[in-house]
Amino acid sequence: MGARGRKKGSDGEKSRKLMLQIAAEEFALNGFHDTKISNIVKRAGLTQPAFYLYFSSKDAIYQELIDQFTYKLEELVGISRLESNVTFDTLAERIGVGLGAIFTFFEQNEYLAKIAFIHSDNSSEIKEKLAAQIAENLRIEQRYSYFRSDVDVMIAAQLVISALERLSLAYLWTGEKTAKEITNETVQIILNGLIKKR
Amino acid sequence: MGARGRKKGSDGEKSRKLMLQIAAEEFALNGFHDTKISNIVKRAGLTQPAFYLYFSSKDAIYQELIDQFTYKLEELVGISRLESNVTFDTLAERIGVGLGAIFTFFEQNEYLAKIAFIHSDNSSEIKEKLAAQIAENLRIEQRYSYFRSDVDVMIAAQLVISALERLSLAYLWTGEKTAKEITNETVQIILNGLIKKR
Repeated sequence: MGARGRKKGSDGEKSRKLMLQIAAEEFALNGFHDTKISNIVKRAGLTQPAFYLYFSSKDAIYQELIDQFTYKLEELVGISRLESNVTFDTLAERIGVGLGAIFTFFEQNEYLAKIAFIHSDNSSEIKEKLAAQIAENLRIEQRYSYFRSDVDVMIAAQLVISALERLSLAYLWTGEKTAKEITNETVQIILNGLIKKR
Repeated sequence: MGARGRKKGSDGEKSRKLMLQIAAEEFALNGFHDTKISNIVKRAGLTQPAFYLYFSSKDAIYQELIDQFTYKLEELVGISRLESNVTFDTLAERIGVGLGAIFTFFEQNEYLAKIAFIHSDNSSEIKEKLAAQIAENLRIEQRYSYFRSDVDVMIAAQLVISALERLSLAYLWTGEKTAKEITNETVQIILNGLIKKR
């Protein structure tokens, strides 16, 4: 990406990042309509023209935040896909590493996650796209015989997405539980189910 | 509840129900702020004063819709609690009956569910309260040894709530799947987990 317009170099890039960071907080707390560019630049100690050096509009900075979030999330989902050589005994642990990285990302990026997953008009599409990617992982992992073949992977993927959203809202962003705690519980339930075997 | 004010009897009750029904659709589609009482009464073939015979304000009819929804939902969650005499072989089927009734309620009450679960400023509290009730069911069912004792019932309850919301949005209200199909898949995954046993 890099800074556009006149002001280039590391100072410009710093201003750009600062505005993105402040904008994320403003959008998440006040919503798109009640967020003012004037407030973002004021909090960043910059001027209105400085904003337009880096972003063409409020829409543009909003979209960039969503793109930043979904790009990184898709990367983490990609990394979380299990290889063909995972042993049965380490399966839960390996899934925990992948899911844990995603919960940690949500923990550390509360504002971005809220914008993309909850506030955005495109949040449904964002979640659908992510669900499709997770389902594709599960389909491949099913072929490696890690998962039961009678499971509808698309439904399972939707359950993962919804768990991410709900558990982040109820525990992560309230500070009640850590990403690690939530990950362990979620993996146990989704992997082994609730039933007590006879 | 019953009709208040002058206009009583079955005609009044019919007008009241009609306004509730239309209001649910308006609130769900346009949001609280963009819903106009004038539009509700117009669509109901009534006059503005007729509205105020039954509801004190826009806030009041909104809250009544949410109360209607949460009351019925709490009733269904109450009914879904398993007795102590369920056999292992019929466990999935019996859980399916309870969860199926809830998914069917969501299927048939899309507008109410969207208002209470998604649009309302109190949606977090509504979901938290419901999660606590489901967790209490699970705790009792855990004591009957249906479920593993090492499962965090509150996390499991949150997963059920989030599944209700996400699967309704992605499949029920798009008409892509029926309540019955979603119920069966959800019970299979939550009860038995994804893992393929060795």
